[in-house]
Amino acid sequence: MAESKQKYWRTSIADVTDEGMVIRGYDVLKDLAGKIDFGALVYLLYRGELPKGNESKIINAIFICVAEHGISPSSTVTRFIQAAGVPIQCSVAAGAMMFGDIHGGAGEEFSRFLQELVSETNASGRDYDEVAYEFVRKHKRIDGFGHPHHPSGDPRTKVLFGLAEEYGLAGDHIRMTRALERALVAKTNRPLLANIDAAVGAIISDMGFDWRVARAFIVVPRTAGLFAHAVEEKVREPGWRQISLDQVEYDGPRRSQSDKAST
Amino acid sequence: MAESKQKYWRTSIADVTDEGMVIRGYDVLKDLAGKIDFGALVYLLYRGELPKGNESKIINAIFICVAEHGISPSSTVTRFIQAAGVPIQCSVAAGAMMFGDIHGGAGEEFSRFLQELVSETNASGRDYDEVAYEFVRKHKRIDGFGHPHHPSGDPRTKVLFGLAEEYGLAGDHIRMTRALERALVAKTNRPLLANIDAAVGAIISDMGFDWRVARAFIVVPRTAGLFAHAVEEKVREPGWRQISLDQVEYDGPRRSQSDKAST
Amino acid sequence: MAESKQKYWRTSIADVTDEGMVIRGYDVLKDLAGKIDFGALVYLLYRGELPKGNESKIINAIFICVAEHGISPSSTVTRFIQAAGVPIQCSVAAGAMMFGDIHGGAGEEFSRFLQELVSETNASGRDYDEVAYEFVRKHKRIDGFGHPHHPSGDPRTKVLFGLAEEYGLAGDHIRMTRALERALVAKTNRPLLANIDAAVGAIISDMGFDWRVARAFIVVPRTAGLFAHAVEEKVREPGWRQISLDQVEYDGPRRSQSDKAST
Amino acid sequence: MAESKQKYWRTSIADVTDEGMVIRGYDVLKDLAGKIDFGALVYLLYRGELPKGNESKIINAIFICVAEHGISPSSTVTRFIQAAGVPIQCSVAAGAMMFGDIHGGAGEEFSRFLQELVSETNASGRDYDEVAYEFVRKHKRIDGFGHPHHPSGDPRTKVLFGLAEEYGLAGDHIRMTRALERALVAKTNRPLLANIDAAVGAIISDMGFDWRVARAFIVVPRTAGLFAHAVEEKVREPGWRQISLDQVEYDGPRRSQSDKAST
Repeated sequence: MAESKQKYWRTSIADVTDEGMVIRGYDVLKDLAGKIDFGALVYLLYRGELPKGNESKIINAIFICVAEHGISPSSTVTRFIQAAGVPIQCSVAAGAMMFGDIHGGAGEEFSRFLQELVSETNASGRDYDEVAYEFVRKHKRIDGFGHPHHPSGDPRTKVLFGLAEEYGLAGDHIRMTRALERALVAKTNRPLLANIDAAVGAIISDMGFDWRVARAFIVVPRTAGLFAHAVEEKVREPGWRQISLDQVEYDGPRRSQSDKAST
Repeated sequence: MAESKQKYWRTSIADVTDEGMVIRGYDVLKDLAGKIDFGALVYLLYRGELPKGNESKIINAIFICVAEHGISPSSTVTRFIQAAGVPIQCSVAAGAMMFGDIHGGAGEEFSRFLQELVSETNASGRDYDEVAYEFVRKHKRIDGFGHPHHPSGDPRTKVLFGLAEEYGLAGDHIRMTRALERALVAKTNRPLLANIDAAVGAIISDMGFDWRVARAFIVVPRTAGLFAHAVEEKVREPGWRQISLDQVEYDGPRRSQSDKAST
Repeated sequence: MAESKQKYWRTSIADVTDEGMVIRGYDVLKDLAGKIDFGALVYLLYRGELPKGNESKIINAIFICVAEHGISPSSTVTRFIQAAGVPIQCSVAAGAMMFGDIHGGAGEEFSRFLQELVSETNASGRDYDEVAYEFVRKHKRIDGFGHPHHPSGDPRTKVLFGLAEEYGLAGDHIRMTRALERALVAKTNRPLLANIDAAVGAIISDMGFDWRVARAFIVVPRTAGLFAHAVEEKVREPGWRQISLDQVEYDGPRRSQSDKAST
Repeated sequence: MAESKQKYWRTSIADVTDEGMVIRGYDVLKDLAGKIDFGALVYLLYRGELPKGNESKIINAIFICVAEHGISPSSTVTRFIQAAGVPIQCSVAAGAMMFGDIHGGAGEEFSRFLQELVSETNASGRDYDEVAYEFVRKHKRIDGFGHPHHPSGDPRTKVLFGLAEEYGLAGDHIRMTRALERALVAKTNRPLLANIDAAVGAIISDMGFDWRVARAFIVVPRTAGLFAHAVEEKVREPGWRQISLDQVEYDGPRRSQSDKAST
């Protein structure tokens, strides 16, 4: 009896004891380090078991596709903060915060509705294209399709979906994503193909990941790229970055107001 | 002529054009995705070239050793913030900020002085043990050695140094780290062995990485663990986490002061 | 002509030139510093003009009510990160991130729907209580009412609404908030009174603030409290904070799994 | 007896009980709200007692001088992150992280050495100018003096030092700061006058604040400005901000490398 009170912290992820650390039942040093790669560890962390097929390969491919994107809003933020003399893990963290609903984080919501749609469709036995057309008809805007820079389709999607097929990992969620593409193209007459957010969302859904972990597949690898930017900023640029005034337009009230205040 | 003005942003990491993205000269989709693993990409990002030996294997092993540490200060911070209803990339970013000078970030400073020490010693042709003894004599405290929970040595160091040897990657920086261990043990009569921060610092220094990027080898993989904690918090715990009052002691001035103010 | 291209950054908040800085048309050094208090500046920043009545007084009172809350989730986060050796502005920033949808940030959504409700009600000429009853009937849950620690009403609400009356600033939004309280109490038979989030939301709505700025009235003053915690942690506590293992329960798979992996 | 074990959290800042919250011995609702202004509360939080003179006035003046600075690195960071669809307290927090050693956070280090210098000088009875000349001779670079935009002295310093005199708050730390200015000008023949970081550092040191809290006097008020920028970005700008490619120069290895990889 007694000991029934729940502890403040409860976790099933890892156990740290004097004998070493166990992740999801596997001893990190005896069973994992030097034996699996980081893609497999990510699978273990989020799925609770080691991959049985090529899951680690596709996770590595996803990570490689999203780890870096040159000078972009997130690397810009990291560089501005790095230039202000802040520890590197903080400037990288600030850049990582940016992968929200609009910029790179759309995969979370996409995975959520995709998993629901596939699960309902499979339960009902309905046709994927029929469901997709209906879904597209009902929703004004569906995130995850179309890309301003890639009118004929995000090339990363093509490569990742191709690898998923090759690795034997393509399943109902990729199938439904393609049905949604067909429905969107038919409805809009525009090439609204799955972009990288949707591609990653579909692939991780086919591997059985919880939609809540979708952003990890963008943010974890991207922090690797952000560190490269922070170090490059430190090594090559001379201190604090100013904003050039000729980039700025002030369109608020003019100084004349001062008179009113000086009364 | 003309075009001589330097642009506001300058980078040698990646180039994003209509033809696709190039990282350090390699086309991401044609040359990298599906062809190398994430460890090799990390090497490419920070060293500017693809690994020629087993570097990717040791990077994977490092990432696996540090990706997760159960309920710890960083996962605790991520869980508190997640429980407050903030997007997951923000709660993970806050946890990542913690890997500073004291907690997990010591590898940066360790790599800096280790690289300097090895470079000077090699230039002078002096004996590693002699240099290490002198260094230890001169410095009151050297970060990276000793671990409160592992009096007989951090087991992760033993595994990682062993793998570095096996992969043919152990060089002068591991050698000097071991000389520093011997000098510290001799001086203090305590088992001040290289902990995980020093182990990672020594290994990445042997691979030629800039010390400024040392924290990436802790923070990038750890964000994977922090995502697992954020999702677990969301799925299993009921909303906002309160701090139990019986954990708190207030030792400031008592309410009696109110009298003074009410005058 | 020509100069028609829009600049990358556009702002009506402040203009920084060689002659000094102007905020919303007022010269900071000539018109504001030493002449108004910080509450009035906050009003100027968000409303674009100086207050004409007691607005600065009520902003000061709000700031005082929310600046500090002892050992709470946010100060805990700041202290954990501070203890890890990170610059103080970063540990405070992490604590500030916590004021999201669940913890302290509910005023944003509350202000949004309150402003809409008041505006529609005034346009239609309907009775406030009638509208409030209808609204409460239609919504299962309304954030901003009730407080786990204050069953008979958040005392901060009473004080702040009292001051708003005294300063001549109570208007339709406080009136509607009280109508909502009556409707909620009638519907649920429980004392679901406006908590601090709703109180602040109603008061700033009566002063004409955009609902998007609601969280500023919590976060700006609270950063002052978080700095006090960060400094206290630095001065009084000895370095890195560990999580006591007797607070942690691991309920994942047992180490036995190792056997499977060692094949 | 028994009860001797120290609790995990210990604070002297505020006590939250069923009777309400007490800050440094003062009941927030009975003694503070509606009775003092936010400047006085800041003083109470960091000094542990209510101000006896004009301290609140000068704190308000400092806050007004630093609350806003137009389009600057910090507001830029907040705007980029806001444009990515992240909660406002997170985009503001990221901007606040920037006030580190280089950008706006120099007051911390300045206050530290200024407090030491004044305390030693007073203990020894030496002449301030003599000490300042000696200090300046010994140090190659002293942060807090000079401003790229204000060659003839930061006008905010003049105003704030003037108000400190007027309010009867100017003491030894302002005196020593002026001695340092004289010594720097004599040594360098350049107008290296105290900038805003040094001015704030000197004034808060004269009020007896711990140097560790110096950045609060910049960051707390500046969060008010950052909220204004985040809201303006949300209201006036259309979604995600891209970086214009004509601002970016890639100078890494050319795509030709692809050949090597394709073998």
